[in-house]
Amino acid sequence: MALAQRTSARVSPSRQYAPYIEAVWGLKNHWYPALFSNELGENQVKGVLIAGHEIALRRAKGKTYAMQNRCPHRGVKLSGKPMVLTDDLMTCWYHGFSFGLDDGVLKTIAGCPDDQNIGRVRIRTYPVQEVAGIIFVFVGDENYKPVPPLSSDLPLRITDDPNPVKHLLDPDVFVRGIHRTGKANWRLAVENGYDPGHLLIHWDSMMVNSQDRLIPIGVEPVREDAVRFIDEPDGPKGIMCMYNREGAWKPILENPLVKMKAKGKKPYYFRVSTVLPGLLQVEHWPIPGWSQLEWYIPTDDKHHEYWEVVVGPCRNEDERSAAESLYNGFFEPIGLRGFNDADLFARESMQKFYEDNAGWDEEVLCMFDNALVAWRKAVSRFNRGIQEAPRICEEP
Amino acid sequence: MALAQRTSARVSPSRQYAPYIEAVWGLKNHWYPALFSNELGENQVKGVLIAGHEIALRRAKGKTYAMQNRCPHRGVKLSGKPMVLTDDLMTCWYHGFSFGLDDGVLKTIAGCPDDQNIGRVRIRTYPVQEVAGIIFVFVGDENYKPVPPLSSDLPLRITDDPNPVKHLLDPDVFVRGIHRTGKANWRLAVENGYDPGHLLIHWDSMMVNSQDRLIPIGVEPVREDAVRFIDEPDGPKGIMCMYNREGAWKPILENPLVKMKAKGKKPYYFRVSTVLPGLLQVEHWPIPGWSQLEWYIPTDDKHHEYWEVVVGPCRNEDERSAAESLYNGFFEPIGLRGFNDADLFARESMQKFYEDNAGWDEEVLCMFDNALVAWRKAVSRFNRGIQEAPRICEEP
Amino acid sequence: MALAQRTSARVSPSRQYAPYIEAVWGLKNHWYPALFSNELGENQVKGVLIAGHEIALRRAKGKTYAMQNRCPHRGVKLSGKPMVLTDDLMTCWYHGFSFGLDDGVLKTIAGCPDDQNIGRVRIRTYPVQEVAGIIFVFVGDENYKPVPPLSSDLPLRITDDPNPVKHLLDPDVFVRGIHRTGKANWRLAVENGYDPGHLLIHWDSMMVNSQDRLIPIGVEPVREDAVRFIDEPDGPKGIMCMYNREGAWKPILENPLVKMKAKGKKPYYFRVSTVLPGLLQVEHWPIPGWSQLEWYIPTDDKHHEYWEVVVGPCRNEDERSAAESLYNGFFEPIGLRGFNDADLFARESMQKFYEDNAGWDEEVLCMFDNALVAWRKAVSRFNRGIQEAPRICEEP
Repeated sequence: MALAQRTSARVSPSRQYAPYIEAVWGLKNHWYPALFSNELGENQVKGVLIAGHEIALRRAKGKTYAMQNRCPHRGVKLSGKPMVLTDDLMTCWYHGFSFGLDDGVLKTIAGCPDDQNIGRVRIRTYPVQEVAGIIFVFVGDENYKPVPPLSSDLPLRITDDPNPVKHLLDPDVFVRGIHRTGKANWRLAVENGYDPGHLLIHWDSMMVNSQDRLIPIGVEPVREDAVRFIDEPDGPKGIMCMYNREGAWKPILENPLVKMKAKGKKPYYFRVSTVLPGLLQVEHWPIPGWSQLEWYIPTDDKHHEYWEVVVGPCRNEDERSAAESLYNGFFEPIGLRGFNDADLFARESMQKFYEDNAGWDEEVLCMFDNALVAWRKAVSRFNRGIQEAPRICEEP
Repeated sequence: MALAQRTSARVSPSRQYAPYIEAVWGLKNHWYPALFSNELGENQVKGVLIAGHEIALRRAKGKTYAMQNRCPHRGVKLSGKPMVLTDDLMTCWYHGFSFGLDDGVLKTIAGCPDDQNIGRVRIRTYPVQEVAGIIFVFVGDENYKPVPPLSSDLPLRITDDPNPVKHLLDPDVFVRGIHRTGKANWRLAVENGYDPGHLLIHWDSMMVNSQDRLIPIGVEPVREDAVRFIDEPDGPKGIMCMYNREGAWKPILENPLVKMKAKGKKPYYFRVSTVLPGLLQVEHWPIPGWSQLEWYIPTDDKHHEYWEVVVGPCRNEDERSAAESLYNGFFEPIGLRGFNDADLFARESMQKFYEDNAGWDEEVLCMFDNALVAWRKAVSRFNRGIQEAPRICEEP
Repeated sequence: MALAQRTSARVSPSRQYAPYIEAVWGLKNHWYPALFSNELGENQVKGVLIAGHEIALRRAKGKTYAMQNRCPHRGVKLSGKPMVLTDDLMTCWYHGFSFGLDDGVLKTIAGCPDDQNIGRVRIRTYPVQEVAGIIFVFVGDENYKPVPPLSSDLPLRITDDPNPVKHLLDPDVFVRGIHRTGKANWRLAVENGYDPGHLLIHWDSMMVNSQDRLIPIGVEPVREDAVRFIDEPDGPKGIMCMYNREGAWKPILENPLVKMKAKGKKPYYFRVSTVLPGLLQVEHWPIPGWSQLEWYIPTDDKHHEYWEVVVGPCRNEDERSAAESLYNGFFEPIGLRGFNDADLFARESMQKFYEDNAGWDEEVLCMFDNALVAWRKAVSRFNRGIQEAPRICEEP
């Protein structure tokens, strides 16, 4: 194919981050968003797929529970035809196997209350936390202990900024967003979101052009400290592109060979970081003072669930109302959909090349991909386990 | 997953009925329904798929013939673009290879009558019988001899009932029904139909509720003789749930843990049996004096053809007319479709769990599943052969 | 299955043309049509798939270029979201990698002009020729030298005919046609087109019946010279059915066993030949003085691109206008679509039988298949290489 590729084939570059290459099904023992709170009403049952784990979510008396979404009796999905009989049990619609929401233990079988399996069979449950309008589930090994705090899988709290963006766990915060399925492995999605070199796909974006923002054609990392690791004790782990470090990055404003010049006039400050298990934070985006979060959640080996959330300040009802308007008229249609549709297309375009894992060795990386290599190394260093392929998994 | 599963993994429970577990493609050397008589008009050619056998059906001068549905010349389906030239030949539409309907021997090639293959090449034919408006084909090994009587693969003739339901081979019988494709292996379909524990999926059925029938939440087999083998000399083999044996089954009328109570007031007698190769008979269903038959016919490894037939008495034209009305207004829309749609959904919900055969070891069976285990053993004991996977098979 | 098959299984008949059996992905180092000229406008980029090669076509200043359709950086298709910035570069839409149209060398990266890969990485380009309104690409090994002349992969120039049909490279020629995707391996498509025995599928064709052409039921090759090899020095290689050789073929005008008689009264002369890499020429078809060409181009292992082209004389504007009318009102709707739809159906009907390659041994060939066996031997003898399966290939 290419000269550089042939050479590189001799010493596989992916050897530097082997665990990342193995993480086809994602990272385990991490907190993942499962649903927005308003997607799960009282007494509803819904199924989600996270890193190959089929999980049934159930809300009872306001509290949310998560358990294995296969009845061990005949293997049907509990969420297939939800049956809600009491507040403390999840009942399978097929034969009435009824499991404790709290502990997963088989408490009775509707039409077979004398069965000897009762009290002896158990299905696994998953830790759940619900904050900022999002239901998070801790997915991985059943016996992983202790379960780390949710905050360790949330974005870095920003402190080195005179006007720092809000953190998801802050009070007075406005959080809204969407999620949808992308036909690409989660790693391609993370890399696309974090990629310092992908400005070109947004070249024609209404969002940036309508605001006359100064968009360079690209950025070249020119110093060792262009990218830094995030490694907070008991906190998030990942990497950050230090676009705010004077002289660490060289913006490319013109390239005569392709007849391109930077567009827009207004300089615009933003900074991106990505933390495990695959969560992007873009500070001061889509507008200053706000931030955009994106989770790229492994579902199966060929799909991810793409979460796009905006986070902003909201101290009172007036600000909430204004934020709602901004979200509905601008953030969601122009940003999360219009702007990010180009990203979804780009990820899906990479899938075939990487699908059999050979792409990780064949790819020809360039300067700005240092940021991606740093991410791959961060995953390899900080992950709490590489998720194994499941026995059963229906397409999302 | 579940405690019970881990234990059972040590000694695989499916060892007790290994042939059943192997029967992914169904049982061979049995009679299967292929089409309703009125689905095959004079001179029509239609293709069916039974246990991986691709079979072309042809009616000529009223008689029905069945033969291999691939032309040995270039492997196209004879039914792909039916070509009917004479009453004694099946001609392939592509190159005119013409086979004797009776013996499958190549009798001529339309445009190549001097070819040396003529008289020497043969395709296989299948025994056919047409009774009660149904075309049956004997499917399995070409040289299986003697071909057993059709009645050995039909339901047990009921004698231990003061008002026994009609048998398919009786005179004065009304037979009508439908068939459709289910996306599940045939064994899951049989087990669903015969399952004593699946009452819950019919809990909201208009058919039972509108008639105020007394439906327990479930039934527990409490004596050894709750289920009996059917093993008639030269007749059907299978099992029967002896719901009519006083004290053999315990109906569950209430389960406070799931806040359920039996519905309806009118006690209702019915009994179910299943015989090889996969045929359910429900006596006195959908109404007393009638019976419902259901075949779960393996097509490929992941699909079955679901036949639903009602059988009732019909001694004269008036009774026929009344039966027609009952069928069109009640049996088909409310019973075969409305009621049984829930069964089709249930079977398809099990498919993923059993698809790689691991489900047979992982499942956690309970009391009422004894009836299913008995069926699995009956198949393992009485089958006339386990069907091998075919070389070619297009999805049904 | 059939007696003859069992016998033949002892000595596999396909041993006589083993390279042909291996050519699942087609023949390499041959010229293939990629697009009609009018399908690629100035500055357009379009992707095609030929024998597993993903190729991006680009027209710049009227000239057509062909190159590998995967960017080596992250493996996306260049044609996925065409980006045309200058006349001499193909720029990838994702990160701006820009390759010389002439040599495939990475000349710059839009937003990363200082990258060390520039000038060192290269993607492969393919030789292109554009004649008679068709863009041809030479597909195969990158270093195959010398590239043979295009004419060596075009039809045989006809000389042994008082009124010979035109050659594609002639001046004063009218060439028009269509192409579409067929769901069958390319070899089944070639064999269907060239097949002397497939008259039956056109038995009801409006095209032949409306013209009262004499159509025999079939033809039997009765002499050794019924089929001849085409083996021109530096020219096309393949085979020709010598329908014009008196006494070489016996037309079958009647077969009482299937009650068929030849239709039509007007004798009609045509002759067919097929040359590598899979190109049919039917002389004097659809009407005398014209010819029909058909390419069966391997795309992936289960699909081919079916090209149907008519070639006729056209010396001036009046003749061009008349030819246009004939093409639009007759050749395309009645011939290329109506008539040839039956061929497309036939090929797709063979796919399952041959898909796992067992069909080549199981098939039961007859007299007129000698012509096909000759073609298989011609491919085995004259091919310039058997195409290997590609690492990546998206369905056409």
